[in-house]
Order: sequence, then C-alpha cells, then structure tokens
Amino acid sequence: MPGPVQTFTHRTTLQAQALRKPGYWILVGRNPQTPLPAAAPTPGAGSTQLRGWPGGGLRAGYTSPQGPAGTDSPLQTQTPAGALGGLALGLWRWQQAAMAASEEEEEEEEQLRQRFMAPPVSGLRELRRRRREVRSRMELLLMETQAEVCRALAALDPGAAFAVDTWERKEGGGGVSCVLQDGEVFEKAGVNVSVVFGLLSEEAARQMRSRGKSLKAKDGKLPFCAMGVSSVIHPKNPHVPTMHFNYRYFEIEEADGTKQWWFGGGTDLTPTYLNEEDAVHFHKTLKEACDKHDLKLYPKYKKWCDDYFYIEHRGERRGIGGIFFDDVNSPSKEEVFQFVKSCAKAVVPCYIPIVKRHRHDSFTPEEKLWQQLRRGRYVEFNLVYDRGTKFGLLTPGSRIESILISLPLTARWEYMHTPPESSKEAEILEVLRNPKDWVH
Amino acid sequence: MPGPVQTFTHRTTLQAQALRKPGYWILVGRNPQTPLPAAAPTPGAGSTQLRGWPGGGLRAGYTSPQGPAGTDSPLQTQTPAGALGGLALGLWRWQQAAMAASEEEEEEEEQLRQRFMAPPVSGLRELRRRRREVRSRMELLLMETQAEVCRALAALDPGAAFAVDTWERKEGGGGVSCVLQDGEVFEKAGVNVSVVFGLLSEEAARQMRSRGKSLKAKDGKLPFCAMGVSSVIHPKNPHVPTMHFNYRYFEIEEADGTKQWWFGGGTDLTPTYLNEEDAVHFHKTLKEACDKHDLKLYPKYKKWCDDYFYIEHRGERRGIGGIFFDDVNSPSKEEVFQFVKSCAKAVVPCYIPIVKRHRHDSFTPEEKLWQQLRRGRYVEFNLVYDRGTKFGLLTPGSRIESILISLPLTARWEYMHTPPESSKEAEILEVLRNPKDWVH
Repeated sequence: MPGPVQTFTHRTTLQAQALRKPGYWILVGRNPQTPLPAAAPTPGAGSTQLRGWPGGGLRAGYTSPQGPAGTDSPLQTQTPAGALGGLALGLWRWQQAAMAASEEEEEEEEQLRQRFMAPPVSGLRELRRRRREVRSRMELLLMETQAEVCRALAALDPGAAFAVDTWERKEGGGGVSCVLQDGEVFEKAGVNVSVVFGLLSEEAARQMRSRGKSLKAKDGKLPFCAMGVSSVIHPKNPHVPTMHFNYRYFEIEEADGTKQWWFGGGTDLTPTYLNEEDAVHFHKTLKEACDKHDLKLYPKYKKWCDDYFYIEHRGERRGIGGIFFDDVNSPSKEEVFQFVKSCAKAVVPCYIPIVKRHRHDSFTPEEKLWQQLRRGRYVEFNLVYDRGTKFGLLTPGSRIESILISLPLTARWEYMHTPPESSKEAEILEVLRNPKDWVH
Repeated sequence: MPGPVQTFTHRTTLQAQALRKPGYWILVGRNPQTPLPAAAPTPGAGSTQLRGWPGGGLRAGYTSPQGPAGTDSPLQTQTPAGALGGLALGLWRWQQAAMAASEEEEEEEEQLRQRFMAPPVSGLRELRRRRREVRSRMELLLMETQAEVCRALAALDPGAAFAVDTWERKEGGGGVSCVLQDGEVFEKAGVNVSVVFGLLSEEAARQMRSRGKSLKAKDGKLPFCAMGVSSVIHPKNPHVPTMHFNYRYFEIEEADGTKQWWFGGGTDLTPTYLNEEDAVHFHKTLKEACDKHDLKLYPKYKKWCDDYFYIEHRGERRGIGGIFFDDVNSPSKEEVFQFVKSCAKAVVPCYIPIVKRHRHDSFTPEEKLWQQLRRGRYVEFNLVYDRGTKFGLLTPGSRIESILISLPLTARWEYMHTPPESSKEAEILEVLRNPKDWVH
C-alpha cells in the first residue's frame, strides 16, 4: 500500500510534461547512471540533475540532459513559463544543500551521501536545526530505510540499477522515488519516500474524520505534515514472493494549536507459491521486531494485516500477511517512533534471505503463468481496495507515477481459471482464503 | 463497461466452488466443445450440460463432465447439500425447455437453436406468452446480438471457439457468458448476457437515487428486472483495436404500482495506434444508426462517451470513444427500444471490417509492448472508474468472472513511460487527451 502521504504529491514532470495536463509536481533530479526508460527529449523542457549523488565525487549542479541535444545554455532560456515555478523550487533545494556546505556540515553531508539515495526533502540544515524532533528523526529514518532496501536489492540484481527521481511539490515538500525495472532478479522494485506539508485537503480531512478523528479546523484550514516510505518489490522468479512495506507519520495542527499525530505502516508478503519456511521466517522476524516493544503488538497487527489486505470480491487475501497498523499514537510519540524504527529495520532481514534462497530456483512456464494471474489479483487489490492508492488516484494533482509504482510490470486475467485440487496453486489459495498463524 | 445488470448476479459455480466462499449463483450449462480452461474436477461437484445447444442434434440432458472421472451416476449422489439449490434451478430451466416441446414450439426452438448461443434465461414459453412486451423483445435482442457478435468473431478466428456458460441466479434470472480466450486473432473476447429480477438491493437503490430517480419503495422493497448484453473484445495484434459495447434495460416497480423503465448502453473503440480511416468508419457507422432515429442523438451520445470513459488520474480517455447513454426513457418505450436495436445491430458492421482489415498486419515487439501498456490503462479505467464494474465488485454475491471478462488477458505497467515526441504512440495519446470529431 502506498501510504496516504503520497496522496498529497503533485503531478507533471519536466520530461513528461507533454504527456500530462498541467499540474504541480516537478522532477528536480535524476540519477545520471539510470536514464528514463523510453524517455524522449521534450523541446523546452530541462531537468535538474544532482550530479554525484549518490556515490560519485562530483558536486551537485545543474545540467540539462533532457533538453535539446547538444545545448548547454542556461536552463532559463530553454524553459517555458509553466516550468519556472518548478525550477525555482529546484533552485531552492539546491540552495539548501549549498548553504549546508560549511566544513562540519560537509562532513555530515558526505556521510549522508554514502547513506541516502538523494538529499532529504527538508534539507540537511533544517533537519539539523530541529534534530531532536521526532519529525526530523522520522524523515532521516525514511531516507535510511529507502537506501538500505535499495542497496540490499541492487546487490542481488547486479544487472540492473535504481533510477532515482527527486521531485518537489508546489504546496510544500516533495519526494524521492527509486525504481529498478526489468532487472534479472526483479521485475519491478519501487521504493518511494515522500515528505509533504501544507493545508489538508477537504477530502483528506473527510476521510480522517470518518476514521474517528475530530480535527477542529481554523477558518476551514488544517496545516499538516505527512511523511512516509512506501515500497513494492515484484521479483521475476515465481518462487520469490512479492513484498510490500510502508511506514508513515502524520501531524495535523488543530484550531487551538494542539497537534494531532500518529504513525501507520506495515510489511507484508505475497508469494505465488507457498513456502512454509519462508512464511515462518518472515513472520518470525516481524514478531521479534514487535516483541521488543510489546508482546501484544504482533498478534494485533498480524490480524489487522489479514483483515486489511482482503480482496472481498475474490474471498481471498492478497498475500500471506505480515503486520499492518494505522492511527497509532500511544503510549508516547517516542515509544511509537522506536517501534516503527524496529519495524523499518526488520524489512531487509525479513525479505532479503528469502530472495537469496530462491532467486536461482528453476521454474516452469506454468509456474510463471500462475505468477502472472496472481499479479492480476495484486492489481485488483491495489486499484479497487487500497485506501492510499484509491485516495491518491482520485485526488487531483497526485504524482501518479509514484503511486502506481506498486503495480507489477506484467499481469494476467483468465476467465474461470481454477487450479486443480491438491495442486501447489490450490495450496496457496487455501492459505489466502484461510489465513494461518505462522508463529506462536 | 459491464452494465449494472451484472451487479445483481451471484457467485459460486459448481466447478469453481472450492475456490470461492459460499454464494448464490451456479453454473448450469457449458458448451461441451469448449471445456473450462485449466478447470479441475472438484469431488462432489457436477455440472449440468445442455447437450446439443447450440447447433448439435442432441436433446438437452444432464451429464456430469466435471465430476469424478469415469462416473456416470446420478448427480444427486455426487452433489453436496450446498449445490442442491443450484441443481433444482438447473432442473427448473430444463423443465421450461421441455414444456416448450410441442410440435410448433419445437420448430421455433429449432430456429432459436440456430440463432442463439444458449436458451434464453426467461425460457421460450414465457417469452412466447408475453411476446408483445418490450421486456421480452429486448431479451431476444440481447440473445440475438450475443450470437451475431460471437459468430462474427469466431469466423475471423478459426483456431479458437467460444466457451458458453449458462448460469442461474438464486433470487431470479441468470445469464449466458461466452468467452473466447487466447485465440489466433483475439486475446480475450467476452460477450455476456444477463437477465435478472427480484428486489433491488439497498446499495443499487441508493446509486439510482443519486442519479435523480425518486423510486418510492413499498415496505422498503423495490421489485426490479434488469437485462443487458455486455462485451469487451481484446485482439492480439496491436493494429486491431479493442472494442466494447453494452446495451441494457431496467424496470422498477414503485410502491403505487407504476413502473419506471429506462435503457442505457453504448459502443466504443480503444485502439493502440490511431488509424483515422478506422476511427471514421467506426463513428460513421454509429452515427448512421443514431441518425435513423434523431439527428441530435449521435453528437449528444458521442460527447457523453468521451466524458464517461475518462481516466481522470491520467488526463486521458480510455479510447477514441463512440456513443454512450444512460437513463433514456423518452420519447416512448417503443421508440427507445427501436433506437437501442439499431445500435445493437451496428456493432458487427462497426467493428468487424476493422478486424478484417488489420488482423494480419505485421507488428514489432515495440508495438506489442505499447499495446500492453495501453491494456494497463484499460484495467485502470475498469477497476477505478467504471460504474458497473465497481458496483459489481463491491456488491456481495456478484458473478465476478462475468464482470471481469472485461479485463485483458495480459497488461503491463512501466514507471514513467514516455513515448518520443512525434511518434505513433504520442499521436494516439494526443487524441486520447483531446478527443476529435470524426464525422460531421
């Protein structure tokens, strides 16, 4: 589930501008090692590139790789009026980075450059200024989780690289989308961070109130800050399961100045075929992460996960579950943050051993076909039920490409497909219909 | 768009029983020439087969082709209690056919056997009894349209055959689903008829009232009858467009005994690549069908179609349109029926010449890939926006397999796919963003 934080992001990249109606989000950076798939130069559209981030020794700076071939003229002269707001935002972000370039700060920046996929949305200086706030620590955790997961995945798929897009949102904030597509091991792996702030939309407020929040607005306005990391990993081999995780944090300021806050998230597994050892490993790793904080958490969030990822019209869950929680704001902000941190840190140990174990497994065309049918079910869940996706799609100006990172590269629908009884296909269906307890 | 009539159908086939939670619809017939794809025998589950329908010289009768291999024992002994209701319904339908078997009736049945894919849901005797009612004539038109379209498609794809499923709905009515899958010319072609009646669900009444209908209920009950034919044809060759049509009729009885009635429907085209000649032929044929009745109809319903099939989050229409209308109940029932008949009769001449013209066109792997990406958009429209599909999926007990016939066999989603400017891919996108007038 791409979390609700994505629902506040906004559309239209410089590159893809000709493809979409005018909107508010804008692509400000792209890892130069991994160009846009099938991207074409759009006359008058430039792109800001953060050279040397991540990894390389070069300083960040402007280039225009997507502009008219061979030109190196200042971006301003190539850019239509509509894109200027975006460029100004790009400039603002670059200034944030530049202003941080004192000696001590350079050292810290160097450390982060080693760790993160791109500069954090709020800027290093701002994060340093409010380093004790959970909001800042959460943003760093999101960036760290993104980088950890991307690095771990990339190490298993040496033939492919993550494309890194950094984008800004006109009303405040932005995000970093990392996508590996059509690799040897992974069909599509997307890890998206967004950190957005501004005023809550009517629709978002309505949805939150329907979940029981009071949210007293001042002149109809509710300032908010929402941040999250969201990821879906679809491997090629049908014996390697799909994995999804999402961790997010919300803050809303009410009319009297009090702040409502909560965390949400979860990690869940969607195998094409059941492997009990994998299922136990996955759930056990999540349980250990939860148990460090409260023994009641794993059973509660395991059930919530089974209930949430339910494809009602099929009578099946999307996968074999994991954990899921939302609106968590007790016992204290610090304690919930520490719990979320444990969950985020568990993503790599949950999943990577399973990928390693099965990425070279042999498989038949029939097994690949069954995987494709299950991918179809994944699409059904995400487009029909998933709260974050639905809300994002129906909110004008969402960054659609980041929301739909979750969809598989390929999927299939056959009329009346029914696996033979006692087959491996029927075995996983049984578990999707009647969830099991994998650890006690 | 599978029409709203499907939203009243109910789930669980005998064959697929093990795959779904208990429900209310039941498969009573299957064309013996085209077995279920990948279907497996489910112990205790039988299937009623209408032998010799269509075409063959055999009389209808019971067999159990899906039962345990080699058994020919009476169905009752193989059938679990849960399936008995369905068998009784199957028996009822068979009795309907048997009772019609006087000499004159036999002749008429023979004629229909030549024309339809399966016996009409309401039974020949009942249709004969009320042969002057629009309701009966509409049901015959639906069956005729289904058969015409299936025959025309099958003639172009000699390597494949339509599987014909007839199914009953516990609360009243049933349907006939015809599906051709993985042929030489067609990837997936589904033509579905449903004729259902009973009491309107709360949710259905709510949706109708939100469209401005008053619907005064007696003790909260609203007897209704809904019937429609709905079809989506996905060809393999990217130069042959996808086509969708749906024609439907509704009757609702209000508290004071007055009947509300209306027709809805449309036919629209979704090409992967733009071919202006095809677009003009398609729209011209529809315009001619409309113009016979009222010159205002085509422009009005062409615009309605462009507005309805809009993928808001992409800023694109699903295809190049056609016609779409709903809630039409004037000038008179007879006149609207005649208009709908003209539209239904236009389906084959609209589409078949386009298939013939392009089915052997050569294409590149890149063109196939672009087709797959457009298929992804088709899935997005149908699962996120289409009223009939959404309502059907969210209504407990729907016959999911008939609703989701509309989804393509295969689809694809790539992150940030942007076709090069001035490419053929960009050309169709331009038309999807800014609909054109194809005939004047």
